Amino acid sequence: MKAIVIHAARDLRIEDQPEETPGPGQVQIALAAGGVCGSDLHYYNHGGFGTVRLKQPMILGHEVSGHITALGDGVTGLRVGQLVAVSPSRPCHDCDYCHRAHYNHCLNMRFYGSAMPFPHIQGAFREVLVANASQCAPADGLTAGEAAMAEPLAVCLHAARQADPLLGKAVLVTGCGPIGILCILAARRAGADLIVATDLSDFTLSMARTAGADVTINTGTNPDGLRPYTAEKGRFETLFECSGAAPALTAAIPAMRPGGTIVQLGLGGDMTLPVQAMTARELSLRGSFRFHEEFHTGVSLMQKGLIDVKPYITQTFPLAEAVTAFETAGDRTRAMKAQIAFG
Amino acid sequence: MKAIVIHAARDLRIEDQPEETPGPGQVQIALAAGGVCGSDLHYYNHGGFGTVRLKQPMILGHEVSGHITALGDGVTGLRVGQLVAVSPSRPCHDCDYCHRAHYNHCLNMRFYGSAMPFPHIQGAFREVLVANASQCAPADGLTAGEAAMAEPLAVCLHAARQADPLLGKAVLVTGCGPIGILCILAARRAGADLIVATDLSDFTLSMARTAGADVTINTGTNPDGLRPYTAEKGRFETLFECSGAAPALTAAIPAMRPGGTIVQLGLGGDMTLPVQAMTARELSLRGSFRFHEEFHTGVSLMQKGLIDVKPYITQTFPLAEAVTAFETAGDRTRAMKAQIAFG
Amino acid sequence: MKAIVIHAARDLRIEDQPEETPGPGQVQIALAAGGVCGSDLHYYNHGGFGTVRLKQPMILGHEVSGHITALGDGVTGLRVGQLVAVSPSRPCHDCDYCHRAHYNHCLNMRFYGSAMPFPHIQGAFREVLVANASQCAPADGLTAGEAAMAEPLAVCLHAARQADPLLGKAVLVTGCGPIGILCILAARRAGADLIVATDLSDFTLSMARTAGADVTINTGTNPDGLRPYTAEKGRFETLFECSGAAPALTAAIPAMRPGGTIVQLGLGGDMTLPVQAMTARELSLRGSFRFHEEFHTGVSLMQKGLIDVKPYITQTFPLAEAVTAFETAGDRTRAMKAQIAFG
Amino acid sequence: MKAIVIHAARDLRIEDQPEETPGPGQVQIALAAGGVCGSDLHYYNHGGFGTVRLKQPMILGHEVSGHITALGDGVTGLRVGQLVAVSPSRPCHDCDYCHRAHYNHCLNMRFYGSAMPFPHIQGAFREVLVANASQCAPADGLTAGEAAMAEPLAVCLHAARQADPLLGKAVLVTGCGPIGILCILAARRAGADLIVATDLSDFTLSMARTAGADVTINTGTNPDGLRPYTAEKGRFETLFECSGAAPALTAAIPAMRPGGTIVQLGLGGDMTLPVQAMTARELSLRGSFRFHEEFHTGVSLMQKGLIDVKPYITQTFPLAEAVTAFETAGDRTRAMKAQIAFG
Repeated sequence: MKAIVIHAARDLRIEDQPEETPGPGQVQIALAAGGVCGSDLHYYNHGGFGTVRLKQPMILGHEVSGHITALGDGVTGLRVGQLVAVSPSRPCHDCDYCHRAHYNHCLNMRFYGSAMPFPHIQGAFREVLVANASQCAPADGLTAGEAAMAEPLAVCLHAARQADPLLGKAVLVTGCGPIGILCILAARRAGADLIVATDLSDFTLSMARTAGADVTINTGTNPDGLRPYTAEKGRFETLFECSGAAPALTAAIPAMRPGGTIVQLGLGGDMTLPVQAMTARELSLRGSFRFHEEFHTGVSLMQKGLIDVKPYITQTFPLAEAVTAFETAGDRTRAMKAQIAFG
Repeated sequence: MKAIVIHAARDLRIEDQPEETPGPGQVQIALAAGGVCGSDLHYYNHGGFGTVRLKQPMILGHEVSGHITALGDGVTGLRVGQLVAVSPSRPCHDCDYCHRAHYNHCLNMRFYGSAMPFPHIQGAFREVLVANASQCAPADGLTAGEAAMAEPLAVCLHAARQADPLLGKAVLVTGCGPIGILCILAARRAGADLIVATDLSDFTLSMARTAGADVTINTGTNPDGLRPYTAEKGRFETLFECSGAAPALTAAIPAMRPGGTIVQLGLGGDMTLPVQAMTARELSLRGSFRFHEEFHTGVSLMQKGLIDVKPYITQTFPLAEAVTAFETAGDRTRAMKAQIAFG
Repeated sequence: MKAIVIHAARDLRIEDQPEETPGPGQVQIALAAGGVCGSDLHYYNHGGFGTVRLKQPMILGHEVSGHITALGDGVTGLRVGQLVAVSPSRPCHDCDYCHRAHYNHCLNMRFYGSAMPFPHIQGAFREVLVANASQCAPADGLTAGEAAMAEPLAVCLHAARQADPLLGKAVLVTGCGPIGILCILAARRAGADLIVATDLSDFTLSMARTAGADVTINTGTNPDGLRPYTAEKGRFETLFECSGAAPALTAAIPAMRPGGTIVQLGLGGDMTLPVQAMTARELSLRGSFRFHEEFHTGVSLMQKGLIDVKPYITQTFPLAEAVTAFETAGDRTRAMKAQIAFG
Repeated sequence: MKAIVIHAARDLRIEDQPEETPGPGQVQIALAAGGVCGSDLHYYNHGGFGTVRLKQPMILGHEVSGHITALGDGVTGLRVGQLVAVSPSRPCHDCDYCHRAHYNHCLNMRFYGSAMPFPHIQGAFREVLVANASQCAPADGLTAGEAAMAEPLAVCLHAARQADPLLGKAVLVTGCGPIGILCILAARRAGADLIVATDLSDFTLSMARTAGADVTINTGTNPDGLRPYTAEKGRFETLFECSGAAPALTAAIPAMRPGGTIVQLGLGGDMTLPVQAMTARELSLRGSFRFHEEFHTGVSLMQKGLIDVKPYITQTFPLAEAVTAFETAGDRTRAMKAQIAFG
């Protein structure tokens, strides 16, 4: 089978790898669709991020779906031929965090496509994938592309749960890449009343409007765009910070209502923040990291038509054009989510 | 002007009453629509409920909308001719509960159309109503009928906030009168995944499906209908109990997941409950009573098309046919919300 | 070794039973102290409770401590000779509730001394007990009697966590048996400001005062004792209902502040409750059942002197006088917690 | 009467000012004790803080107590001669935040001794003070010095409420000035299990141990002192950050358990923070600012002996030695809380 392997910055290869067979409790999957994520792009463009560096070739990819081709012993509730969304999250189920059901903080997490440990955790961009049955959410009725959106959608549903209940609330979203767009969809689904979105790209802001943002602001061309929302100490009860950029977060503070919550999803290293102002406003800055049960929740909400991610899959490339897919995925003037079609 | 006045059980009259003029901070409203509520029906059918009895004639009605005809001194943000939804809630703003912003528990509440205090609090079913500007939610873009649904919708949005966050949750609704239907709409808007509704009437259950219930169960003809949801100690994380009937609540307990929340909206006097089973399941039975800021929230959600109440206004009668409206409103084989058109 | 075995109502025998040896991950314990609990008394006095009936002889007891006499393979963090409090809770760690860390709702719980399943789960009142190391909380510095209080203390710490934060709150406790007393200690430790306790026994109320109750009311001799707390819709933000008696709960409703929480610990079958009044006050009735991590928490708080349970161990009997211990334990005119000293 | 007036940095004068008489709803108070707070010291040492600068002479002080000397019309519940703690918080009760009971975010707050608005809000360090009756908490049974601690204690009780419930939790306190010490007392009162405190001064750390800290670490002489708490991703569920120093906060991050809460009390301007690590740990950084109802709560807890602040009043100076009081108050090698005795 073929796999998409990163060797070093800008050295992405399609290589032959041996197929695996499913053990007890596992399934074999013919991969159908894989979305290129920001962390994949970091490996592609920079060979890592922060202090994490590639030390050996690594299969990329963790937003995937496919059709089951074989069931291991003891697997129930799944069938050969079924489309499944495959979660990249494999907690150990045996550490203190797993025992408390805080699986996303597992001490021994094996998340697809991560160079943090050595040997690296190989990713899911391969024609044939063996996964635990518990990683699989049946996705009958969805397209393979939609099913492959289950992972980033789960990230955003998890983030929505870090916020106070959103029903009737005023929500700001800073950064309208795929995570920002899916946060808008999640906030709208969770009952937000006013949704305002900011970004530096008119293309992504047009996507934000499609996703349900009531107001979009290009803070590059309109740096004072949030000013109307700063009256009376601020308007927004919730901020989903999806840019990872300190200026985006800092600019939003005066528009945040005292007592409000900033859910931080963007990962951008250290930030210099106006902590005194945040304290006087009693704001909460709350990190949101990955997900757990939200993976299945998101698939169900898509199956019921309650969340529609299709408009945001802007490009689909065949496996042979994986490099083009990676080049396209990072272009915020035309790509929201670029996916690769396997097989 | 005409008003709808209850004198005793089944003695409802349309009477002339003097018009009022707005004082400072008040507005005068030409009433447009008024919905008949369950409590109005109690006065009409029984002359009261529980220990509350009519002791003098009382104008009924508290679900109303209308067009502003005059502004009192100092009123801003409203304009003559504007359609407004009028909240029946008039807290004193001066008791300990008001000081803590628990307005729905105000010690001196003057809620339209209540015989609890004496003299009774007169209601809002009158052609010309004077109200405080703060009671009015601008309802531009809505029909008068929709605007008059703001009150029961607010009740249900408030109830949704008593529940834990609903995003992705499994929700049961017992009792599919107007409150049950609006709870379904609120739960769906707040992101519920599975919604199951029960009632004894096929008509209301068909409405429940329109409102978004995934499954409906007529527990009259199918008393074991909830059994599939009792596996593994129960399936539902939230129950909106809208029937006020102990059997409905009791039947739901085995289908409630341990740790779940029952939001009690239905008012039905004393109930004999399986408290031992509820305790062992660590269920929460939480009362929800009226609303406060949710009144404005609901109007906004309707204006944005995020909640659509129109299908549930099943009949509209002219003022002259008020008695017919009351007779119809209580018939669960054909009426969901019956309204009266004023002027 | 000797064990305390119930054969039928009022047929309690001290019998020889074979000793067990510890397997991997287990420890062998020379039992030191065991407290007689209300459920033990139900088996002793009535041969069961509700629909649960003794169908075979069963060792009683689940509030125990002892000294480790042998360590099974792989046990770390414990040592021979060490005093440990032994939790009676043995969840399966493999059902959906365990996977969500809701261990007290485990579908396959093996809680000591329960006739609910058949064969019954044998209890812990035996001279030599083999337990999982994970059931043991090191209790260095405590007396054996204190350590045996860890179980009911855990029940009450768990209950305290079901309430909203207690810091500065006004708390009512109905029922001043051991659970009521430990709720008072837990509420005081958690920062409650006003604590009022009710019971029908002057002896237990004197214990309540020792435990920190600011006011005690004998509702037998002073049925209107709660009336001063009903002004302005009620005073108490939290009620720990420890009696399991509907009259105690019902009498407390008018003294509960709207929005308050009733934590139900007492198990008393069905109750007829003023649900309409509870709804209008937006009270929450929340069940609290057993505990999980609070077992270790309670031992730690006792070790630090932050909770002192010693005054409430009112009698200690040698194993040979087990029947006297059971007779005494149920006498609320002189016993709070009666314990049995083993070995 | 005399008042303590700041004219410029290090220009503190004791001056004659006219006495006021109480209007309706007000009381006149003979001041008894006043504590020197960090913000008072900022005005004294630097003439302001951040962009806030003294633009006119201003009476300092906002931690005060005294005896009532006269009652204005309509005052009930207070009596001449009574010792009262006087809250410096005077919200407008008429803005949107007050209407939502978020009084500490009042748009028109008149907090004693603040140069933020112009004209400045005059403070409370004056022999005769006129205050609203609602600012006064009866403090019978306390010393005047204790009563004057009600204000900083309220700050810390409010902070404790921003944290998740503390019962049984592991708590870190960074910065052991008066706010840190009172956070330790509040955390202990609220049921914290493990309390660890850090500072750079051995004197304040000795006070922290008196207040209940289980472990104290001088991070100046022992910069790796928190390392043992970083195992398995961190130990502390709650951090009360009372230093306002970015290094203290940053050093604590690796010792914070994923999902934990950092309550930020210290005010120190902008901070450069490891936001990526905070996000991956899903930490919450939550500001806590002033207080509202906690003022009365704290007085009650002191009156019951549940919180004892007396050991932390390290110096008391007569009014004539106010300058010495200010010089002493800032010396963390010997002063915790320095107070001034009036009259």
